[in-house]
Amino acid sequence: MIIQIDKNIDLNKQVEIVDKLTNKGFKITPVKTQKGNYLIGTGKGKIDLRTIGNMEGILDIHKVSDDYKLVSKKWKVGATAIDLGDGISISGGGGFAMMAGPCSIETEEQIIKTINHLKENDIQIMRGGVYKPRSSPYAFRGLGIDGLKLWYDLAKEAGIKIITEVMQVSQIEEMYDYVDVYQVGARNTQNFNLLDELGKVDKPVMIKRGISGTIDELLYSAEYVFSAGNENIILCERGIRTYERASRNTLDLNAIPILKEKTHLPVVADPSHGIGIRQHVDTMALASIMAGADGVIYETHETPEKAYSDGQQTLDFSESEQLIKKMRKTVALRDELAVGKL
Amino acid sequence: MIIQIDKNIDLNKQVEIVDKLTNKGFKITPVKTQKGNYLIGTGKGKIDLRTIGNMEGILDIHKVSDDYKLVSKKWKVGATAIDLGDGISISGGGGFAMMAGPCSIETEEQIIKTINHLKENDIQIMRGGVYKPRSSPYAFRGLGIDGLKLWYDLAKEAGIKIITEVMQVSQIEEMYDYVDVYQVGARNTQNFNLLDELGKVDKPVMIKRGISGTIDELLYSAEYVFSAGNENIILCERGIRTYERASRNTLDLNAIPILKEKTHLPVVADPSHGIGIRQHVDTMALASIMAGADGVIYETHETPEKAYSDGQQTLDFSESEQLIKKMRKTVALRDELAVGKL
Amino acid sequence: MIIQIDKNIDLNKQVEIVDKLTNKGFKITPVKTQKGNYLIGTGKGKIDLRTIGNMEGILDIHKVSDDYKLVSKKWKVGATAIDLGDGISISGGGGFAMMAGPCSIETEEQIIKTINHLKENDIQIMRGGVYKPRSSPYAFRGLGIDGLKLWYDLAKEAGIKIITEVMQVSQIEEMYDYVDVYQVGARNTQNFNLLDELGKVDKPVMIKRGISGTIDELLYSAEYVFSAGNENIILCERGIRTYERASRNTLDLNAIPILKEKTHLPVVADPSHGIGIRQHVDTMALASIMAGADGVIYETHETPEKAYSDGQQTLDFSESEQLIKKMRKTVALRDELAVGKL
Amino acid sequence: MIIQIDKNIDLNKQVEIVDKLTNKGFKITPVKTQKGNYLIGTGKGKIDLRTIGNMEGILDIHKVSDDYKLVSKKWKVGATAIDLGDGISISGGGGFAMMAGPCSIETEEQIIKTINHLKENDIQIMRGGVYKPRSSPYAFRGLGIDGLKLWYDLAKEAGIKIITEVMQVSQIEEMYDYVDVYQVGARNTQNFNLLDELGKVDKPVMIKRGISGTIDELLYSAEYVFSAGNENIILCERGIRTYERASRNTLDLNAIPILKEKTHLPVVADPSHGIGIRQHVDTMALASIMAGADGVIYETHETPEKAYSDGQQTLDFSESEQLIKKMRKTVALRDELAVGKL
Repeated sequence: MIIQIDKNIDLNKQVEIVDKLTNKGFKITPVKTQKGNYLIGTGKGKIDLRTIGNMEGILDIHKVSDDYKLVSKKWKVGATAIDLGDGISISGGGGFAMMAGPCSIETEEQIIKTINHLKENDIQIMRGGVYKPRSSPYAFRGLGIDGLKLWYDLAKEAGIKIITEVMQVSQIEEMYDYVDVYQVGARNTQNFNLLDELGKVDKPVMIKRGISGTIDELLYSAEYVFSAGNENIILCERGIRTYERASRNTLDLNAIPILKEKTHLPVVADPSHGIGIRQHVDTMALASIMAGADGVIYETHETPEKAYSDGQQTLDFSESEQLIKKMRKTVALRDELAVGKL
Repeated sequence: MIIQIDKNIDLNKQVEIVDKLTNKGFKITPVKTQKGNYLIGTGKGKIDLRTIGNMEGILDIHKVSDDYKLVSKKWKVGATAIDLGDGISISGGGGFAMMAGPCSIETEEQIIKTINHLKENDIQIMRGGVYKPRSSPYAFRGLGIDGLKLWYDLAKEAGIKIITEVMQVSQIEEMYDYVDVYQVGARNTQNFNLLDELGKVDKPVMIKRGISGTIDELLYSAEYVFSAGNENIILCERGIRTYERASRNTLDLNAIPILKEKTHLPVVADPSHGIGIRQHVDTMALASIMAGADGVIYETHETPEKAYSDGQQTLDFSESEQLIKKMRKTVALRDELAVGKL
Repeated sequence: MIIQIDKNIDLNKQVEIVDKLTNKGFKITPVKTQKGNYLIGTGKGKIDLRTIGNMEGILDIHKVSDDYKLVSKKWKVGATAIDLGDGISISGGGGFAMMAGPCSIETEEQIIKTINHLKENDIQIMRGGVYKPRSSPYAFRGLGIDGLKLWYDLAKEAGIKIITEVMQVSQIEEMYDYVDVYQVGARNTQNFNLLDELGKVDKPVMIKRGISGTIDELLYSAEYVFSAGNENIILCERGIRTYERASRNTLDLNAIPILKEKTHLPVVADPSHGIGIRQHVDTMALASIMAGADGVIYETHETPEKAYSDGQQTLDFSESEQLIKKMRKTVALRDELAVGKL
Repeated sequence: MIIQIDKNIDLNKQVEIVDKLTNKGFKITPVKTQKGNYLIGTGKGKIDLRTIGNMEGILDIHKVSDDYKLVSKKWKVGATAIDLGDGISISGGGGFAMMAGPCSIETEEQIIKTINHLKENDIQIMRGGVYKPRSSPYAFRGLGIDGLKLWYDLAKEAGIKIITEVMQVSQIEEMYDYVDVYQVGARNTQNFNLLDELGKVDKPVMIKRGISGTIDELLYSAEYVFSAGNENIILCERGIRTYERASRNTLDLNAIPILKEKTHLPVVADPSHGIGIRQHVDTMALASIMAGADGVIYETHETPEKAYSDGQQTLDFSESEQLIKKMRKTVALRDELAVGKL
């Protein structure tokens, strides 16, 4: 059960509501986000909603039978749009967000060339890594905060928003002034402390599905961020680990219509990691669109063969440009066909 | 290595070629299909192709480094079209084949209604099961050969081709006069005797990917049929078994561009089994098209809730009609964009 | 529900029972095995067992809530022993069956040497393949029926029982006189026609778990054989397909106590395929014993490095001898500790 | 390549060595642990070891072809023993460590009863969670640091060592005075920052295998801790995520002999999470012993049905006592048989 309460509710009134529900067998967790105040009721309690629906200070109330609550479409039927400022947004209910850039931020020249490529193609969000999770401690781990500052300044000047991975709690504050969207990587989808702390900032968070994470676990991870105070969440399907070795991961496009049915949050796809094979990234990006994705995030680099990482799944600028044109036409057809909206 | 030889080659000449190659370390398997005669060389042999290329009776010769040979695109660069007669075909190189019908053939009335639905929507191939593989021995196992005869007669009269599952060697001959395409189900993908025997008939065979089969295993299974004499093979991605429980299977659309790169055979998708959720079948069918599928096979029934099996993933005729229209527009866009053809 | 009926029941009495149950909403499948006659009731019927329990011709009656029936421990509490003749058996309730031999039967000399190795170590059952399921059609497919005859004659003379894989229905009769236990391989676990036909013979059948088969699917496959008339079934855990690449398969030893809880049939382990690494086969064999296996089946060859197949997971005779000694001591300890019997 | 250097090496000498190797194409990472100073050479460099082997300050030098280095058995052939003080240790080379206790630390009474149970059975290490990773943000997350302090004091008084999960970097210091072994949970196996920071403390760390982690990834995670300065690492197999639903996880006992072959670190098994079914935990614990585990960690509680979490896989004290006795006998047999030591 979710009860939205007035932000200015009298504290005694709130206590009265909580007591009433607790007596009926609910465990109540109060949640306060940028957008609203809520009481989340879990457990095996039972109550006739009419007996509390008209209590003072209650704005809205819904039963939500899912184990995740605030991210459920049973709570909020309409799609959520994540506002990045300057008229740029990622929405669960229309439009299509393209995010492109290198696996790793490498040099000033690389950043500038990528920004130019995006500007020429009207792309407004750039991806890139400055903290790289690597299986081996001896591999390149990214340029760190200095790389981020350099990148952010150049992007801001160009009117480009940036999305980049945050790997640990201590980086959240450090990165805050230099990031438009925090990305939680597939190895951190269930790093619950990181999620809790990202709930306390007011910048959007994109959560990638875990390496072998279920769809429900992804929704729970979003619930962590939301219930800790941050409603601005984007979900990302990036492929799961299976026995198949012909592709890097198994891009689970089933997850897109299923997630869109379960949650009001926007859902994007990452075809670069999803298939891991450069010549097929475009095909899977277009397939993701027809599957209903609200956006894509993919890797591009001026010279993929020289990239510090992930070159085998990175498009060059010419391939990227072709893909962008095809994506726009595919999105147009999808909108015309109203795919996934019946 | 594959050597195509003249169908009328002098036997002594053929022995001479085989001896030469055997002496060079190859193991030679002779293959005779509807369309040609071949010598397949496997093992660690080495030879300068020029020393045999101009021997009498040799039409063509190629090195094929893949472990599968005759189904490889390294052998045959152009796409293969499978001719079902009466101008109907399933092609790896253009067009788009739609196959629809119930999970199980149930009654004459059901067959007629489905045929009418297909005719009204210009669909030329009907799917349906008369032999049903079921986990439990106590479940409905299909109408059998009598159901097949009834169905085939009605379909033939209407100008509709039929595709249906064959479960064992003894059924091949029994079914022969009443089937246009034999389907090998996901539990039989590695039933090698069945594949061998299907190589001896001259009707097309559609092989579904195994329940947890790899892409390479699917190609090997096709190689069984081809090397036993039957070149008319269609491959089908129908979802694989993973840990995810929110969908019946995990439709692996990555497999489509990867298969299209590796083989000249047509590749179709089965979104019904691939996701297993009725309201998302259409979305996944459209995604399959953008992923490059040469066709789809999906389940439709006048009243899915009354179907003997698979009702939860079956479209009613109205949903099917909507889907067909959307698929045609999506195929048109895909052709315009030349997806997967660069 | 399972009703055991008198073999000599008056047919009218049987019809009366079936009618009564059908009227109560059950679907009744009659089953006749070597050992008894049964009526299997499935579906949503409900009945007070006392109202039929004392009808003439009914020997025993039990509710079995599992979807598999005759193989369930809810039907038959005591363990089943599979009698191979000459005092040799594989039992779910005591003793420990060791089956060893090469992956493929290769030559007379190889057979004789293996038999001698088994005799010296008091092993009574020899494994080996004459029909080999191979991913590639160009690989060695076994010596076939002639190899089987040779092998069987030599084994019989030595008092050794043999177990070997049957790949298709037509082989069942052909092999019948030359086999003590039919083995159903992991690619055929859900080859339902093969299972049905094996239900019609009176020789024991060992069913391997499917390549990515569930525990329940294995029990269903056994139910196929049982309900078709053959009660003599052995189950085999041989590893499942997962994402892990450091071993050939993932030996799922959890499956052993779980199967032993669910079924009265004996359960053996195949550590050779289960790990696929020669130097660790012995360790996994011993672990299987402590997990509760009723037997093991493993690969041994005089010179594994020269074996036609599976050499990388095959023990030489000296390693095999060491393992046998260790297994005997481990079984002795397991019996002393009464593992899995509390 | 790993070069162990003298702790008191002249800095100029060290620079000289690094320069020489860098010139030969190696990337050098210096590592300083509690026990030694090392230079780790990665990349494609080549050098004749004899040309540097006798340089001043070099104690030992080995080529290690694995991608993980310091944890490899190619570097250190002998097994590592992790000393917990007071004569208690967990060793890769003998003995057998038993760790038992509740899933969650709940109350003082619960702690005392568990300690008494352990003391009565001569168990020296107690497990328990005070920070609980939970999929849902609304579930019980543990007693936190206050619970840890209470527990540690009681355990210390009783001469019992404790192992408990650390979930984030900020907890490391906070927990330091109240913990004997830090545990890294399955969701944090690739939380690289956490691993890095645990490399900076001098208390032992037990790393659980990731939820769908490979064996190699587990070794890499250990390499993170080691290369950051902490050699005291224990690895734990706790089951992986597969499609099988009859057990909570699939305990991969193959991993134990494979890990023992690859690394000198001790490897323990967690049968409680590995199968997740109370009545089979003992069987899988014994199987783990025969598979070569250096210890087990399992859940026990006075009244499992009342436990805050994981009751379905928790043994009561009577079951635990029985298991301990059986484990001791099984370890004795294993030692006698020298399993995995040939």
